[in-house]
Parts: sequence; C-alpha cells; structure tokens
Amino acid sequence: MVMQQIDMNSDMGESFGKYKLGDDEEIMKYISSANIACGLHAGDPHVLKNTIKLAKEMDTAVGAHPGLPDLMGFGRRAMDVTPDELYDYCVYQIGATQAFCAALGVPLQHVKCHGILEVMSTQRPELAEAVASAVKDVDANLLYMTIAGTKLYQTCKAAGLRVAGEVYGDRAYNDDGTLVSRKLPRSLITDAGAVVERITQYLDTGTMPTYEGGTVKIDAQSICMHGDTPGAAGMIKALRKKIDAKGVRVVPVGTLV
Amino acid sequence: MVMQQIDMNSDMGESFGKYKLGDDEEIMKYISSANIACGLHAGDPHVLKNTIKLAKEMDTAVGAHPGLPDLMGFGRRAMDVTPDELYDYCVYQIGATQAFCAALGVPLQHVKCHGILEVMSTQRPELAEAVASAVKDVDANLLYMTIAGTKLYQTCKAAGLRVAGEVYGDRAYNDDGTLVSRKLPRSLITDAGAVVERITQYLDTGTMPTYEGGTVKIDAQSICMHGDTPGAAGMIKALRKKIDAKGVRVVPVGTLV
Amino acid sequence: MVMQQIDMNSDMGESFGKYKLGDDEEIMKYISSANIACGLHAGDPHVLKNTIKLAKEMDTAVGAHPGLPDLMGFGRRAMDVTPDELYDYCVYQIGATQAFCAALGVPLQHVKCHGILEVMSTQRPELAEAVASAVKDVDANLLYMTIAGTKLYQTCKAAGLRVAGEVYGDRAYNDDGTLVSRKLPRSLITDAGAVVERITQYLDTGTMPTYEGGTVKIDAQSICMHGDTPGAAGMIKALRKKIDAKGVRVVPVGTLV
Amino acid sequence: MVMQQIDMNSDMGESFGKYKLGDDEEIMKYISSANIACGLHAGDPHVLKNTIKLAKEMDTAVGAHPGLPDLMGFGRRAMDVTPDELYDYCVYQIGATQAFCAALGVPLQHVKCHGILEVMSTQRPELAEAVASAVKDVDANLLYMTIAGTKLYQTCKAAGLRVAGEVYGDRAYNDDGTLVSRKLPRSLITDAGAVVERITQYLDTGTMPTYEGGTVKIDAQSICMHGDTPGAAGMIKALRKKIDAKGVRVVPVGTLV
Repeated sequence: MVMQQIDMNSDMGESFGKYKLGDDEEIMKYISSANIACGLHAGDPHVLKNTIKLAKEMDTAVGAHPGLPDLMGFGRRAMDVTPDELYDYCVYQIGATQAFCAALGVPLQHVKCHGILEVMSTQRPELAEAVASAVKDVDANLLYMTIAGTKLYQTCKAAGLRVAGEVYGDRAYNDDGTLVSRKLPRSLITDAGAVVERITQYLDTGTMPTYEGGTVKIDAQSICMHGDTPGAAGMIKALRKKIDAKGVRVVPVGTLV
Repeated sequence: MVMQQIDMNSDMGESFGKYKLGDDEEIMKYISSANIACGLHAGDPHVLKNTIKLAKEMDTAVGAHPGLPDLMGFGRRAMDVTPDELYDYCVYQIGATQAFCAALGVPLQHVKCHGILEVMSTQRPELAEAVASAVKDVDANLLYMTIAGTKLYQTCKAAGLRVAGEVYGDRAYNDDGTLVSRKLPRSLITDAGAVVERITQYLDTGTMPTYEGGTVKIDAQSICMHGDTPGAAGMIKALRKKIDAKGVRVVPVGTLV
Repeated sequence: MVMQQIDMNSDMGESFGKYKLGDDEEIMKYISSANIACGLHAGDPHVLKNTIKLAKEMDTAVGAHPGLPDLMGFGRRAMDVTPDELYDYCVYQIGATQAFCAALGVPLQHVKCHGILEVMSTQRPELAEAVASAVKDVDANLLYMTIAGTKLYQTCKAAGLRVAGEVYGDRAYNDDGTLVSRKLPRSLITDAGAVVERITQYLDTGTMPTYEGGTVKIDAQSICMHGDTPGAAGMIKALRKKIDAKGVRVVPVGTLV
Repeated sequence: MVMQQIDMNSDMGESFGKYKLGDDEEIMKYISSANIACGLHAGDPHVLKNTIKLAKEMDTAVGAHPGLPDLMGFGRRAMDVTPDELYDYCVYQIGATQAFCAALGVPLQHVKCHGILEVMSTQRPELAEAVASAVKDVDANLLYMTIAGTKLYQTCKAAGLRVAGEVYGDRAYNDDGTLVSRKLPRSLITDAGAVVERITQYLDTGTMPTYEGGTVKIDAQSICMHGDTPGAAGMIKALRKKIDAKGVRVVPVGTLV
C-alpha cells in the first residue's frame, strides 16, 4: 500500500438563511478537512460561524471556500471578472472566515476555490495569479488545495504556498490525469461501490483507472467528496469505513504537506 | 487649552461597484482615523481594498465600519436582528477588513458600528453585548469607537476593550450629553463656521454648548465628521486647518486610548 | 353546514436558486390559491415562472406574495421602511408576477403580503395604505387576501378593493378574533387531527374555538395552510380530503368575493 | 435631408438606493425614449418609479432596460446564463416596469437589453431567442430596440415584434455597419462637435462615416446617447438643439416603427 495517511475534504456550509443545503452534521463526522462557503456564492455569516463551530466539535480542519458573487446561480456561472476583482473576492472571503476561526479558537488550515473559479483559473493564468496572490497576501502559511498539475496548482507552488493535490473518487480520469468532461457519458461515477473501489486502488497504488482503460498516477494528499448529491452522506460514510478498515489514517491535509 | 491631541474620524469607503459616494480622496487627507464600510450596508471587496490602500498612503489609521445587510437602504433602516445575527455580521465584516489590512501591511486600529447599529445597540442591551463580544472575540486588542456614556460604550468597557469616545461637531447636545433628536429644529449644525467654533470650544474646555444654552462636558478622544453631506470635504479641511493652527496634534485614536 | 364553498391557500415558490424549500409539487395539488414569492424575500425569476407553471397545471389560482428585500432573513425581520418604499416593493413584485402570468396565459387572482408585512401594516396604518394603494394602482381588479377585521383588511376595503378573509387552522384564536401570540404556549396547533377538527367546526358553524374556551365568529373565504413546516403536505392533504368528504367545494377565492 | 423624424434614447434610472448615477433630470428633457434600469444590474423599485414619473413629466416614452443580476458589476460582466434564465430575467424586469407604468398611467413603449446582454445575444443565438420570446410573451405589442442587422435584431423581427434600429453618434463604424471594437484607438468619439457632425450627416444622408474612411448606410429610427459619461448631458443638449434647428422632429420611437 502506497498511502499510510490521507485527507478527506468536502464542501460544507452551503446553506443560506432559512435555506438548508447538504447534510453537514452527518458528513462532517467522516471528513478531515471542510471547505466552507464564505457568503458570496453560498453561506452567510450565521451559517459560516455555525459550520466552523461544527467542524471544531468534530475535529475537522477548516478551510475557506471562496466563490463568485452570484448567490442566485450558486456561483456556478462563469463570470467575466478581472484578476483584480477575483483577488479582492478571495481576500474578502478568506478574511471573513479567518475572523470566525479566531473567534472560535481554531486555525484556518486551507483555501480551496469554488468549482467554477478553479476552471476559470485554469483557463486564464492571470486569474490563477490572482488567487495565489490573495492567499499569500492574507497569510503566507495558508495551504492551497486543488487538483495537482493544473495551472492553478503550479501558480500556487511558484508563489511559495504549500499546495495539496486532490483526487476525485467520483470523476473519470483521462490518461493525462485531467478529468473527463462532464458532458461525456460515464464521466461521473455515481455508484458508491465503484467509488470505494477506485479510491481503494488509489490508496494501494497511487493511481486511478482511466476512461480509456489504463491507469494514471495522481499526486494527491486529499480525497474530494461531493456532499451535495443525494446519498452523498452514505457514500462518504462507506468510504471512510473502508479507509479506516485498511488502516490508512484520515488526517487533516495540513499535516501532510 | 484642555486638549493637546485629538483624533478626527470620518466614514469612508461607501462607494459600491460603479457607484461613487463621498470624496474619500480629499477627506482622507485631513482625518486620522477612517471608518471603512465592509460590504454589507455599503462598500464592496474592491472598494474596501482601495480605501485601505488610500488610508495607508495618507497615513490614516484604518477602522472597520460594520453595518446591516441592507444595501438598498444603505444600512439605515432599523431591522429586527437577533444578537446572534448581529454578532455574526460584525465578525464577518471585521474579518474581511482585517484580511485587506494584512494584505496591505497596515494594522486594523478600531471598529465603529454604522449609525443605526449604534442606535439599536443603545436601545437593546443584548445588541450592545453582541457588538462588544464580536470585537473582542476577533481581536481583543481592537479599539471600539462610540459616543461616551452610552450603553454600547459601557458594555465595551465592561468587556475589557479599549474604548474611545467621540464628539460631534455638527450635532446639537442636550444638557445630559446625549444628542438632540434629528427631528428637532437646529439639531443639526450645517454652518462650517459654527462647527469650527464648537470644536474649538471643545478643544479649549472639554465642553460643548447645549441646546438649552448651557455647556456639557464630553469625554472624547475623536471628532466625528460626516463625509457624505455636500460641502463636507471643505468643512473638514477648514476644521483641520483650525486645529493645526491651535497647535493641537491630530493623531490616530489608537495612540490616545 | 354554513359553508358550501371555501378556498385553500398556501405560500408557494419560496425556493431560491439551488435552494429548494417546501414541497410545492405535492401541496399545489390540494390548494386552490397559491401565494407565490416574488423574489425579494424568497423566490427568484426562475422559481417564480416555474411555480406559476405548476399552479397552471394544477388549476390553482395565482397570487403575488410580496415581501421585504431581505433574502438573508427570509423577509421575516421587521424593517423600518417608509410607506413609499413599501408601495414600491409591492408594485415591483406584483408586476414581476403579472408578467409571468401574462407569458403563461393565466390570470393573477390576488395579492397577499408576506407575514411580517401584514404585522407591520397592522401596526402602522400608513403601511396599510401603501399596500392597498399599490395593489389598486397596479390593477384595481386584484383581490387582496388577509385576516378579516385588521387595519389592513379595512384599508383595502376602503380603497375599493375586493378583499377576502382568511381563517388559520393551526393558530389559536382569542375571543376577539385576533390570533394568540406565538410567544404563548399552545398558540400553534401542530396536531393534524386537531387542525382538521377545527376547520371542520369552522365549515359547520363559521366559528373557531378560542384559547379561553369559547368560540368566535370568523369572516373567512379562505383557509390558510402553512407549507413550510415538516409534515405540512400530509396535513394539507388530510384536510383537503376531509373537506371534500363533507361535500364542501374547494374553489379559488376569486370566485367567492 | 433623408430623415424628417427621429427618436433619441438614453439609459436612465441607474441610481440605486442612496447611490446616484447620471443626470437623469437634465437628460430626460432632451430625449424622447428612456431605457430604464429595472433593478437587477442597476436601479431599484424606488428609483424605477421615480424615473418613470420623471419620464411622464417630460413626455418621454418609457422603455424597460433589463440586465444581468450583478449589481456589484453593474451588469457589465458576461455571465454564463442559460437561455431559460435570461428569458426569466427579462420577463421579471419587464413586468416590474410595466406595473409602475400601469400605476402611473403611462404606456410601456419598448424594451432594450443592457449592453452586455446585447453582445451575448449576438454571440449566442439561443440567447437572442430567449430575449425575443420574453418580450413577445409578456406583450406582443412591445417594440424592441437594438442595432439593426444583428442576430438579435433579426430574431426579434422573425418573432413578429416591432423592432427599431439604433445609430450611435459616439461610436466608430466599420464598413459593414458593425461597431469598431472598443479596444481599438478612435473607436469612441468623445468630442461633442464630432458627434453632432456625424449625426447631422446621418440625418442628411442615412449614412455614417466609417473607420476606414468611407460611409455606410445605417437603418435606424433612434439615436442612442450614452448618459453616464462626464459631460453627457451637455452633449445631448447640444445634439438636440442641432436636430431641432434642422427641423427634424424628435419623437418617441414607437411612432416611427
């Protein structure tokens, strides 16, 4: 077995006002790092505090999960922001999260941008620079979490940040290690057993099966699990059980990078 | 002359997106402490950064100016928030401001709540507690600025925070040191000469003239000047000139408390 | 039996973006009038359209349900708005709803303000005037739905609007026909059987049992059922079944006033 | 002279809450059609009402000016919305405007989408379809105003809407009638005299000078004037004076199409 320790991360704190989203109370039990929405694409000050409180109770490490200022679209719609705007959105949201961490006496471990920001930062290098600078300028000791090998990953590395790679249990991989487009059939793995099997392979070999039928080496210190799909909590619980049974320790990513 | 040193503070950073409000570039030259809007009642991440940058260039101390989440009403409409909600709004906004301070290498000196929050905190002691706790929990070294003697002032003191008192040059005072209701005639002093004269009296004697024709002792380390009225910049410039001429030093309030 | 026909209304369309709230698909089957959120306190343009579409499919009459511009608080926090602001919020939201009605070829039957607006309009007569004027100015043929006897009810009547009264199955009544404060024990009836029994009494006698143990005559053409409590759909279904079994016709309130 | 009558249009009602933008009071005097922001990218219910009121007082025809839900970016940032979302945003905003028109007793003459929506609709035909359908579904008698010849123009025509073309006095034209990219030098004409001269040529000949030095025939019934640039009011006044002096009648576009 290649891996002795691994982190499990999931997006948390995506409720807003009266609107509840995701089963944070359940999922928080099984993960070791929480990416917490900061109020622009999801979450609000009240939800942010309560989610950090929950993470603290569960000994889960806290991360800021900045997104685009588009609550109506859940921050999922690409927006033509400038690097300067993106920098400002990141600093703002990291800071808000930090303050609740300070108030609750827990450290802020990492930053991970919301999905579309990751995609946009891969397509426009100046956005990757903006994200990396924002994280570094707020606190150079923060860890950035993202898929290894991307432009964003490299930019954060080049900026001198600690960077953790992620592996996706429920997404198909191309031979070059990139994710298969969601537009293609079988790009998303929805069967819990298959996800557990794939991650088991990863923990044993450091590789993931590819869409084309081969395997690809993935550089990851954290397993990303989506928490907003129906049945997500059950799948995450099953995966955690399997990982524990294998004797792999699930630990916050900050201890691994 | 009673006062050798005094702070001058004004609300800054109230622009939003394309919307410009106030003459921050000019006013920032004359004040020593800036209360900067944090994005809920006014301001946005971009404006927040640029305003802190401007403060840094002008050697003006930075304060967070949290408000209600009501951009359409400029945070001026009383809202029936719970203490818990208010605590969260304060922590969130102070944190966002702190992060830009960190990124720009300037300290966050103080917190001062937006107008209606001050009023609400005076009327509902549990809101005063929420504000004081929020400031203290984020950073117990932050200074809180408000009118001396109010419930909010006392609560912040009791919480162990450093607290600075304010004097208003353009508001009439009652004999007990409270401000005359804005609903009464002559409660607002709009003549620049009169404002300068009143502050001169304050610097000389530590007292302000009252509505009823007497004088009242005011415990203040900072002069609050409203920046959003037409002609505000000119009035603030004139006042600063007069204070300088008297040989009173204008310094950030953090050095006085 | 006093009542041959009655309307059943419920708040619908309170989802927002990715956030789903309430079981509209199920509840819409049993009610005859839908109060649809218009985007300020809940709902968004997309949800608004889809909810009107759903109402059309189910032959449920459409109403606009304007609220305060406070999505974070679900429009439930009293806000110190001016009559002019409230008028504008109502016109805006009624108009947005009308346009989707036009696009979908269904009439807009009624307007009913969101909870806190009803309360505020009862306490401040000038707000009741603002609501009544807004409805009348947009379309004098619109019906306004509210608790009979309140200031808002009277103001709408005086303005010449058609007005429908409501009866609440799950709220306790005082002897004078007002609702028992939610702060008191047993003010809210949560047992489905009890609610059905109370409404049965109403349909039979035109009266409701009171908190003090007596009965009070209620002038209502519509039964209001809350849709956002757990189990709401089941309770509404049970009530509808009972009403049908009694031979009382459930019809849109517009045909009754 | 080719033109006996022409419309002049400008974007109005872009203030928000306490934030004032543009000199609507002055510009409204000189134009015959107002494109009024509807609250998503700019404007709010209060501003919307007051701007329609102002238009009514000045005998200026009213148009809805729908935009993207991005107040922080003034609706200027391209967003990856679906056709369905855009349809809904248009219906919502047109409806809100209609309601104020009804309340104030003025007709809604036209719809014109905010800048970036026009650009997006030219690039993605399904968005052009969404806009055309939204306008038609709300009221098939509404006129749509846009640059002649674009995909959006053609789609609105094909949908059976009345469509008016626009000519820009302050933008350089290519030989094919498209606008010169703003990224090129001299794409924007900022000299008032030059603008007046160009529009004079248009009124005399139906053609505009091109970037390449030739002329191009433009099919327009309305002159679009930007109101948000410094000195805009003066330029619009000067242009109106010149048009009046030539004996060309300035009339609402609804009377020309």
